[in-house]
Amino acid sequence: MKALVYHGPNKKSWEEKPKPVIQQPTDAIVRITRTTICGTDLHILKGDVPEVVDGRILGHEGVGVIEETGSAVTNFKKGDHVLISCISSCGKCDYCKTGMYSHCENGGWILGHLIDGTQAEYVRTPFADTSLYHIPPGSDEEALVMLSDILPTGFECGVLNGKVKPGDVVAIVGSGPIGLAALLTALFYSPAEIVMIDPDDNRLAVSKKMGATKTINNSRENAVDIIKEMTGGKGADSVIEAVGIPATFELCESLVAPGGTIANIGVHGKSVDLHLETLWSKNITITTRLVDTVTTPMLLKTVQSKKLNSKQLITHRFKLADIASAYDTFGHADREKALKVLLENV
Amino acid sequence: MKALVYHGPNKKSWEEKPKPVIQQPTDAIVRITRTTICGTDLHILKGDVPEVVDGRILGHEGVGVIEETGSAVTNFKKGDHVLISCISSCGKCDYCKTGMYSHCENGGWILGHLIDGTQAEYVRTPFADTSLYHIPPGSDEEALVMLSDILPTGFECGVLNGKVKPGDVVAIVGSGPIGLAALLTALFYSPAEIVMIDPDDNRLAVSKKMGATKTINNSRENAVDIIKEMTGGKGADSVIEAVGIPATFELCESLVAPGGTIANIGVHGKSVDLHLETLWSKNITITTRLVDTVTTPMLLKTVQSKKLNSKQLITHRFKLADIASAYDTFGHADREKALKVLLENV
Amino acid sequence: MKALVYHGPNKKSWEEKPKPVIQQPTDAIVRITRTTICGTDLHILKGDVPEVVDGRILGHEGVGVIEETGSAVTNFKKGDHVLISCISSCGKCDYCKTGMYSHCENGGWILGHLIDGTQAEYVRTPFADTSLYHIPPGSDEEALVMLSDILPTGFECGVLNGKVKPGDVVAIVGSGPIGLAALLTALFYSPAEIVMIDPDDNRLAVSKKMGATKTINNSRENAVDIIKEMTGGKGADSVIEAVGIPATFELCESLVAPGGTIANIGVHGKSVDLHLETLWSKNITITTRLVDTVTTPMLLKTVQSKKLNSKQLITHRFKLADIASAYDTFGHADREKALKVLLENV
Amino acid sequence: MKALVYHGPNKKSWEEKPKPVIQQPTDAIVRITRTTICGTDLHILKGDVPEVVDGRILGHEGVGVIEETGSAVTNFKKGDHVLISCISSCGKCDYCKTGMYSHCENGGWILGHLIDGTQAEYVRTPFADTSLYHIPPGSDEEALVMLSDILPTGFECGVLNGKVKPGDVVAIVGSGPIGLAALLTALFYSPAEIVMIDPDDNRLAVSKKMGATKTINNSRENAVDIIKEMTGGKGADSVIEAVGIPATFELCESLVAPGGTIANIGVHGKSVDLHLETLWSKNITITTRLVDTVTTPMLLKTVQSKKLNSKQLITHRFKLADIASAYDTFGHADREKALKVLLENV
Repeated sequence: MKALVYHGPNKKSWEEKPKPVIQQPTDAIVRITRTTICGTDLHILKGDVPEVVDGRILGHEGVGVIEETGSAVTNFKKGDHVLISCISSCGKCDYCKTGMYSHCENGGWILGHLIDGTQAEYVRTPFADTSLYHIPPGSDEEALVMLSDILPTGFECGVLNGKVKPGDVVAIVGSGPIGLAALLTALFYSPAEIVMIDPDDNRLAVSKKMGATKTINNSRENAVDIIKEMTGGKGADSVIEAVGIPATFELCESLVAPGGTIANIGVHGKSVDLHLETLWSKNITITTRLVDTVTTPMLLKTVQSKKLNSKQLITHRFKLADIASAYDTFGHADREKALKVLLENV
Repeated sequence: MKALVYHGPNKKSWEEKPKPVIQQPTDAIVRITRTTICGTDLHILKGDVPEVVDGRILGHEGVGVIEETGSAVTNFKKGDHVLISCISSCGKCDYCKTGMYSHCENGGWILGHLIDGTQAEYVRTPFADTSLYHIPPGSDEEALVMLSDILPTGFECGVLNGKVKPGDVVAIVGSGPIGLAALLTALFYSPAEIVMIDPDDNRLAVSKKMGATKTINNSRENAVDIIKEMTGGKGADSVIEAVGIPATFELCESLVAPGGTIANIGVHGKSVDLHLETLWSKNITITTRLVDTVTTPMLLKTVQSKKLNSKQLITHRFKLADIASAYDTFGHADREKALKVLLENV
Repeated sequence: MKALVYHGPNKKSWEEKPKPVIQQPTDAIVRITRTTICGTDLHILKGDVPEVVDGRILGHEGVGVIEETGSAVTNFKKGDHVLISCISSCGKCDYCKTGMYSHCENGGWILGHLIDGTQAEYVRTPFADTSLYHIPPGSDEEALVMLSDILPTGFECGVLNGKVKPGDVVAIVGSGPIGLAALLTALFYSPAEIVMIDPDDNRLAVSKKMGATKTINNSRENAVDIIKEMTGGKGADSVIEAVGIPATFELCESLVAPGGTIANIGVHGKSVDLHLETLWSKNITITTRLVDTVTTPMLLKTVQSKKLNSKQLITHRFKLADIASAYDTFGHADREKALKVLLENV
Repeated sequence: MKALVYHGPNKKSWEEKPKPVIQQPTDAIVRITRTTICGTDLHILKGDVPEVVDGRILGHEGVGVIEETGSAVTNFKKGDHVLISCISSCGKCDYCKTGMYSHCENGGWILGHLIDGTQAEYVRTPFADTSLYHIPPGSDEEALVMLSDILPTGFECGVLNGKVKPGDVVAIVGSGPIGLAALLTALFYSPAEIVMIDPDDNRLAVSKKMGATKTINNSRENAVDIIKEMTGGKGADSVIEAVGIPATFELCESLVAPGGTIANIGVHGKSVDLHLETLWSKNITITTRLVDTVTTPMLLKTVQSKKLNSKQLITHRFKLADIASAYDTFGHADREKALKVLLENV
């Protein structure tokens, strides 16, 4: 089969690889029909994720069709259409039993990381019964690719941890795909205001279309002043960090109202200054989280019932065999005005 | 001044009464600009609420303008536009301090019940600082009359107690004004389905317009069968009782899914059969509640930000002086296709 | 092997049966070292549980040693000491994934009910990885037999659903083994008062020793009057029903304070009168639950750390081969002052 | 009357001051019978709290007897014995209505800070109805002085925010009075382990007596290694910071388990390094809080019912007139092995 293979920093190729086989009784083999590229894949390609070794097939998102199942798999059978979760959950360690699949002792984020991933014609998915989800007949499968990773990430790490409520003022720092995923799922809870903060005018315009009530270009506007003015000096109830650098996290510290929450989604590479000299008495909560994908069943219902139009995140479409072009487009997201690129193999 | 006065079962008149005066330092006098009639007022008129005595001015909803404040009132001053809560909260008893204003040891539901109410040109409101709410300039004050009672009732007793979540199946039994208030505020949480159940086709049609995804006329359709079929035999996650008779409560018992909730809003006059012989092992929750109006600030924000179009509940408008006609219309709600009737004094 | 076999109403025998074998790759065979008898076993013997068929081995509690594991079992191996949960959880259906193991689509309460149980020298336990728990070396295994069913039942259905908090007044109606299990685990949360209500003076005396702050013999005292007097007329914050008949449930309705909770544990055979004519406005919560055993890991930690002395529930000890005598003692619990009887096979 | 007056950095005197008078209808005048000294008073004396001006009477804790009440006070009357909360709550601003009294728009921490305090023969307490608490007849009033500040602080900021649960491993960094207050109230929830970490062996010995299951002297032992070893490498479920310097906060970051919480109590003077490069994916929660004293009614019940022995925190007793000696003892807490010093005026 063909697959996108990592060969060390800045080297990748679409090449022939052996078709995966069942290794454990809980495995399934899935024929990939649609997949996508994640910002994390770009980090891997830069060499930032050293556990990814030469020869690894990348990718941790996608939908497809079951080709084969291991002997202990009972929820799925050949021919079933499935959504692949970016997190593999064994379903039986302490973390999985409390819904914290991200820290699964036997799985977690392993696809396209510690084992071969989904940017390929076929993938082996471990713990199939607890890591795949049935796609109801008649579904728009493109829309569901967005449920492998980006939407549960925005929802769980940003919106649920941020405790977004009806009538709240929500500020989202960063309006790339993850910030937009937080925006789309924050809408579930009818906040009064969702303010998107980003230096890119195109992304702010997209945010507006997707439901933001206000946008702030923080390359030329003062987000703290604007939000303080909107809120009688208090600040935002929920502040969602969707960038991952010290400057944006510290902006969140300045934006949060007494009693409010900062929900971090960003993948950080260095420590940040936590201003406890002012925050110690401000009754705030700060959360971090690697997506657990424990809300995938709920998100599936919101897509099916048209409460969530996840397809809006897809800006470009390619044949899977043209994945090199897709990486080029996604790697120049600003220039290309790209959010998520869809790769099709149907 | 003029007021609508109760004179015993089936007797009321629009007559001259002395203008109210400040009795306690925490009182305010409000000039009523808009009020409405509640189903409870009809119960009082039938003689069902024996604590209401001859001579009582009815009404517990409305908006108006502060005319005078007692010496201990600090949040309000003459000329302020205010929303009057149906629940008077002293703010300092044990119940008020835990947000259960309905059981306030010094207040609770007293307006138009134990003290004179709002269907008058002026009303004395006790505990003004903790029972009135500022109306922001430029607000649509009609819309806010719906926040005195009906919307917090539907929201607190039905939606919050019913723990409505994104992707849920919600069933609301009864689509009168209270059921519709539950519907409008259930929408805050993006459930997958909101099913309205009622024997009146007009009310079901109204429900559909307000956002119900499905309606069931239970005078000719089997609600249990339909909801079981929709949910793979499980039942509804949240079931909201908005009628108040044994038959509808027992219907709720049959509709609820394992792990689900029955949130009672209905005012019941007799006991109901609780089928613990089947429900004991079904992991369900049943809640009751007299509205606390503790969510009024949140609801105000949702109206201001246009997440809640509360005005849809108003079907008829009258001059306050024509309140007798308004009672007639509201008292024949089916015939008149009436939901809430607005009384204006502006 | 030998086992206690049901042969229709009022007929049981300790007889030879084939040793169980692995049927599914997720099964384990456990050699039973200690088991016990549940009130439910007495119901089965009376013929009250018609799904139990002639030839069924009874029992759903116990500890033992792994004898053999199916090919898909990864958490356990031959020789491991294990606690057997009364609830078999597949770990991969919708209910199991949300912690509601009692409603597992493939398991639930099946041991000694729909499949052969633990009152035997060996038992086949389905879904071993998600239904057995490791016993740490050096544990008092007698104490842990109480964690198969009775303690999670008292804790989950009574204490957690009853939302017991520091400073609360808790009333427990029924001080048999289940009421005492609720008492022992209510102590985790430091309520101000735990009032036990029962007509049996011996059981009340036992309650006192286990930590009840007050006991009421409701065959000769008025529980409502006493609790109202203790609470300034309000009632109890948490009321736990641990009997299962209409009279005791209705007593709970009279005992609960505004804003309080009635947590039902009792197995009811008929419907009860729910007095919504008074309760509709009292802001109460009523819960039902079949034990999920989702708190077994937490309870294991409390036993290990000596926060919970579960062994106090054991009043009598027998050899497993003397199970007929054990049934006789447990079946005359009042006369024998029996709580839980331990059956040993070591 | 006599009072302890601040006269700028390092200057204080016990001197004659005018007896306070009612200024607002919601005020009360309380004759102080017992008060104490807080670590914050030492900070003020060092000049660290610039809003405290020359001439200010210090102190924000104490119990006493109502001498006089303003015209709007209804919960209290002359002669009532009362507990004074360190936080004055108006009961009617947005923050008070949601239980965040610490941020009260009209009060908050003002006693001995922005207005005259309790280290005096009399004090004026604003918002008496919502800031004082009745002392039941027969109470041990010494024990209740600990409920003005230190116990709600340890409980709300440490234990409640830290979500301590039965079976948990709790680590408390700092075993001064605040750390011990967190320890005493963590016991409410029956955690499996409470580990106290401090460089002072005397304080660790005190911790052990009060219920710590383990102590670590972090001047010579490696707390991270010890706690990782205790928890199979995971870390503590709840980590409570009770010191207020960067080193101890960063220690907390190293101690917390995936899914765990760091609850900050410490008053910090500078920012700390938040290691998001490792914590971003660890699913942790960090909280900050100025005590709200919203749990004072609950804590009163736990003292009354002997679930909380708050008196253990008192190590020294002085006459109020000897307050200079009391400050000397408390200011050399290590040397004197002092926790809380009680000042009596009875």
